[in-house]
Amino acid sequence: MTLLRSSISSCVAKWIRYSQTTSAILGEPSQPNVCGIFPGPKSKRMQIEMDLNHQAASVKCFIDYEKSKGNYFVDADGNVLLDVYMQISSLVLGYNHPDLVRAVSDPRFVATAVSRPALGSFPPTFFVDALKNSLSSIAPKGCHGVQNVLCGTSSNENAIKAAFMWYQAQKRGGIPPTKEDLDSCMKHELPGTPNLSVLSFVGSFHGRSLTALSITHSKAIHKVDLPAFRWPVAEFPCYKYPLEKNVSYNEQQDQKCLANVEQLIKKWKEMKHDVAAVIVEPIQGEGGDNHGSPAFFQGLRDITAKHGVVFIVDEVQTGGGGTGTFWAHDSWNLSSPPDIVVFAKKLMVAGYFYADHLKMKEPYRIYNTWLGDPTKVILLEKALQVIRRDNLLEQMRKIGKALHSELRKIEGTNNSVMRNVRGLGTFCAFDMPDTATRDKFLEIAGNNGLLLGGCGKATVRFRPSLIFGEKHLEITLDIITKSLSEL
Amino acid sequence: MTLLRSSISSCVAKWIRYSQTTSAILGEPSQPNVCGIFPGPKSKRMQIEMDLNHQAASVKCFIDYEKSKGNYFVDADGNVLLDVYMQISSLVLGYNHPDLVRAVSDPRFVATAVSRPALGSFPPTFFVDALKNSLSSIAPKGCHGVQNVLCGTSSNENAIKAAFMWYQAQKRGGIPPTKEDLDSCMKHELPGTPNLSVLSFVGSFHGRSLTALSITHSKAIHKVDLPAFRWPVAEFPCYKYPLEKNVSYNEQQDQKCLANVEQLIKKWKEMKHDVAAVIVEPIQGEGGDNHGSPAFFQGLRDITAKHGVVFIVDEVQTGGGGTGTFWAHDSWNLSSPPDIVVFAKKLMVAGYFYADHLKMKEPYRIYNTWLGDPTKVILLEKALQVIRRDNLLEQMRKIGKALHSELRKIEGTNNSVMRNVRGLGTFCAFDMPDTATRDKFLEIAGNNGLLLGGCGKATVRFRPSLIFGEKHLEITLDIITKSLSEL
Repeated sequence: MTLLRSSISSCVAKWIRYSQTTSAILGEPSQPNVCGIFPGPKSKRMQIEMDLNHQAASVKCFIDYEKSKGNYFVDADGNVLLDVYMQISSLVLGYNHPDLVRAVSDPRFVATAVSRPALGSFPPTFFVDALKNSLSSIAPKGCHGVQNVLCGTSSNENAIKAAFMWYQAQKRGGIPPTKEDLDSCMKHELPGTPNLSVLSFVGSFHGRSLTALSITHSKAIHKVDLPAFRWPVAEFPCYKYPLEKNVSYNEQQDQKCLANVEQLIKKWKEMKHDVAAVIVEPIQGEGGDNHGSPAFFQGLRDITAKHGVVFIVDEVQTGGGGTGTFWAHDSWNLSSPPDIVVFAKKLMVAGYFYADHLKMKEPYRIYNTWLGDPTKVILLEKALQVIRRDNLLEQMRKIGKALHSELRKIEGTNNSVMRNVRGLGTFCAFDMPDTATRDKFLEIAGNNGLLLGGCGKATVRFRPSLIFGEKHLEITLDIITKSLSEL
Repeated sequence: MTLLRSSISSCVAKWIRYSQTTSAILGEPSQPNVCGIFPGPKSKRMQIEMDLNHQAASVKCFIDYEKSKGNYFVDADGNVLLDVYMQISSLVLGYNHPDLVRAVSDPRFVATAVSRPALGSFPPTFFVDALKNSLSSIAPKGCHGVQNVLCGTSSNENAIKAAFMWYQAQKRGGIPPTKEDLDSCMKHELPGTPNLSVLSFVGSFHGRSLTALSITHSKAIHKVDLPAFRWPVAEFPCYKYPLEKNVSYNEQQDQKCLANVEQLIKKWKEMKHDVAAVIVEPIQGEGGDNHGSPAFFQGLRDITAKHGVVFIVDEVQTGGGGTGTFWAHDSWNLSSPPDIVVFAKKLMVAGYFYADHLKMKEPYRIYNTWLGDPTKVILLEKALQVIRRDNLLEQMRKIGKALHSELRKIEGTNNSVMRNVRGLGTFCAFDMPDTATRDKFLEIAGNNGLLLGGCGKATVRFRPSLIFGEKHLEITLDIITKSLSEL
C-alpha cells in the first residue's frame, strides 16, 4: 500500500525504521485479524451474563487486556483489531506499553495502590516530587496551580466550584466568607448560596453529574428525566469545509457566536444570575467533533476577561498530546491564558490547572477523601518520560497531517458518503449522511479489523494513542477505503 | 495494661495468639513512637513546598507509605502512629497488607492498570467473574444489581440519577422517554427536565459535587459560595445518651423526625417538585457520628414505600465491615430492603447496589468513560478473601463491643470533657465540650502516637481498619486515658 508514502516525502526511511522498532518493542501484531464478525459470539454471551447483575447495555465487546499490545487489542473471541479509538481517547501509550508495565512494580506504586492515601490530608512523601515530574511539568502557560481528582466529571465540578468561590470572593473584596454567608448557605439562602450560573455551548459535553449535565448539550439520552440548573447556553460555531474555501462564512459564524456569548453574559447579569464562568471544549468531541477557530477562542478569552468571568477550557479529551501539542489551546495565541484548564483521559489522573488568582486560601473547600490516585500520577510521570524520549508529540503532528490529507483524498472520491474532513493533529473526523450510514460504516470497519469512534449525529472520529505510527496509518487508510466500498 | 483483659473474659488467649501472629505477618511495629511533635518539621516543610503549586492547606502530614505497615503509619519525620482513622475510614486492611501487595502483581491487575478500560463499552474478559467474586458476593439483601464508579460523590450522583430516571419512567407507565421528553430536555424544559427533588437530612454528608452538596448539611465551609438545588431537608434524630436511660425521649425524636419527613414529601408533591428519593446515612459521619435507631430507619423505609419514593442508604462510610457487618443497615430489620445502597471507601471501588426495578434498560444513561477501575475490583476480590479467611467481621464485632464498653468506663471518670459515648461495631465516637477542646485532644493524642478522627462540631470518631486487634485496642485506650489527663 503506497497511498501514504507519496505524501510524506522527507524522513520517511528513518521514520519507518523507528516505527518498526517501536512495534517490536511493543510486541504488537503486524495487522488486524477478525475471525468472522466483530463483536463475536463470546463477547455477546458475556454481555448477557454480565447484564444479569451489572448494566451492560452499552458494552461493545469484552477485551483480553493481557493479550492486547500497542495499537491492537484482542477481544474475547480472539479478534485482533487495530484501535484508533483507544478506550474513548483515554490510552496515551496504547495497550501494555512496556515502560508503563514496569512502573506497576515501582515500590511507590505498590504501596499507594494497596494503602490508598486520602491525598488532601495525608499525601505520600514522594508526592511533591511526583507532581513536579508529572502534572507540573506540563502545566499550561499561565496556569501553574494544579488540583488532581479522579475523573473528567469531577474535574469540571471542582473547576466550576473554584470559579464560583473566586467570583463570590471578588464580590466581597477578596475576604473569606462572612458569618452571614456561612449561616445562610446552610439554609440555601442568599448571600451564602448565590444565584450564579455557568455559560456553556450548544453541542458541548462536560460530564455526567447533574451539574456537568446542566452544561452538556450533546445528546438528549444523557439528560432526559433529570433536573438541571437552568443556565445560559450559547451557540457554537458551525463551520463549512474545506475551511480555505469558506473563510468569510466561517468568520461570520465566529462573530455571531461571540456576540451571542456577550449578550447572554449581560442579560444574565441583569437577571441577577451572573455568569461566573464560561466553559468550552477546544473540539466538541461527544457533540460531533465540532471545531472552533483560534479567532473564536481569542474572542471568547477577550469577552470573559472584559466581564470578569472565569474562562474554563475543558481539555479532558484534547489534552495529553493527541492534537500534536500537550494542550489544544496552545495553538490559539490568546491575549491572556485561560483561567482554568481541565484534564483527564490520556493524563490518567484527572483535575484542573488554574491561574494564581484562583488558588484556594481556606482548607477543605476543594477537597474529598481520595481527591486523586497517586498510582495514576506515577504512571503519568513514566508516560511523560516516554513521550519526550520518543518524540511522540512530533510524531502526532506528522501523522496527524498525513491522516488529514489522506482523508481529504479519500473524501474527494467518496463525497456522496464522506464529507467535512477536519482535524487537529491526530484528532481527525469526517461526517456521513446520517446516523444509520455512519453506524453501518463503523460496523463494517470493525469487521475489517479497525475500531473507530462515532460521535454527534453522523460523525466518525479518530482518537489513536500517541504510539500510532506510519504503518498503522497505512492499515487504517486501507480499511477505511475498503469499508467505504462495502457500504 | 490490664484495663481491657478483665472485660473480655472468654477466648482471650486464643484471640491474643491470633492477634500476635497477624501483627507478625503484617510486619507492623509493636507500638507508636513520636519523636518530638506530630506533625513534625519535615511534614510542615513539604506542605509549604507543595502549596506553591498544589493546594495543601488541609494537609495533616506526609506519610511514607512504603514503610507503613498494618495498623501503623510512618510519617515524613519518622514518627510512628497507631492509626484508628485509616485515611478517613477508607483502608479496609490497614497499610501494605501482604495479600493485597501480592494482588498488585496479578496479571489482570497489571494489564488493566496500564491499559485502563472504558468499562461501560470495553470491559475486560475477566470482569464478569471478578464482579461475581467481589461486589456481587456482598450484595445487600434485595439489591442484586450493582453499578461501579470511582468515588463516593460519583456513586451518590449516579444513584440519584437512577432514582430520577425510574421516577419519571413510572409516571410514563414504564415506557422509555418520549420524543417530547427528549426534545424538551435539550432546552431544560418540562417534561424532559422535570422539577424533582431529593430529600436529605440536617447533618448529612453525601459528597462534594454541587448536587451532592445540595443534599449535604454538615459544614458551611463545604457549601458556601456555591449555587444549590433547593430541595427539602428533614430533621435527623438527636439522641440522648446513654440510650438505655433515655428510651422515651429518643423514641419521640424518631417519631418527630419521621413525621417531618412525611410532611415534607406531601408538601413537595403539592408544590409539584416531587420527592423522588430520600437519602440517608446509617451514621452521619462528617456531621458528628449521629446515629439513627433501627426504629427510625424502619419508619423511613415504610414512609418511602408508601409514597413511592426511592430509599437510598448511603453506606459510603459505614459499608465494608467496620460496623461488624458488611452493611450497617443489616441490623435494621426493615420490612423491605432499601432500593439503593451506595458504597465507596473501604470497598476501594465505589458505586451502588440497586433493586431490580431500578435497572437501567437503555444504554448510555448511567455511563461515563472509565466508570470504575478494575484494579480496585481485583484488590476488593482479594480483601474479601482475607476478611472471610481471617474472620474479620467477627473480630470487628468483638473489638467494637470492647472499645464501646471501655470508652464508657473512661467516660465515667472523665465526664466533664467526654460524653455521649456511642458506637456500632468499631464505629465508636464521643463528644467533647467544644471544638477547641476536641482539637486540642486530637493534637495531644497525635503527639502520644494515636491518630484519631474529628467530625461534627466537637466529636472524636474511631475508624480503625478491619485488622485492628486486641493489642491495638489496649494501646488506643492507654493513649486516650493519658491524653485526657494531659488535656
